[in-house]
Amino acid sequence: QMAQQPAKLNTCIGCHGADGISVVPNFPKLAGQHAAYLEKALKDYRDGFRRDESMAAFARGLTDEEIRELAEYYSQQTPR
Amino acid sequence: QMAQQPAKLNTCIGCHGADGISVVPNFPKLAGQHAAYLEKALKDYRDGFRRDESMAAFARGLTDEEIRELAEYYSQQTPR
Repeated sequence: QMAQQPAKLNTCIGCHGADGISVVPNFPKLAGQHAAYLEKALKDYRDGFRRDESMAAFARGLTDEEIRELAEYYSQQTPR
Repeated sequence: QMAQQPAKLNTCIGCHGADGISVVPNFPKLAGQHAAYLEKALKDYRDGFRRDESMAAFARGLTDEEIRELAEYYSQQTPR
């Protein structure tokens, strides 16, 4: 079923787009990506296992539930 | 135009699939991803700026050209 808008979606839209199709090519497209992969990536950014200054700032403070919602949401967007 | 098979494609197929649709959810789908993002990710794995034991092993020794070919190839696969 279509996840409703995740609480923290606004954090991501600037680079990844609300539809998960990032316009700038150095930011990955997220649409249709595996939710488990997105969840792991976000947790790794939050917990410092994966380094990227901007992503660390965005992920800091996200709860596991907020991360799950974002991963679920983007995994359900249509890839193109 | 459709890139012909990259030289080192066999290295990637096991986890990411020849079509870039990884079956195992903890491995990212690559199909339709931005080539620039894939190229940066592969170089970061090769050069140690991004850590993952398996990816470090696979990326080690890839030339810039081989990386460019792989990034181009997967970016041209149809996402789903």
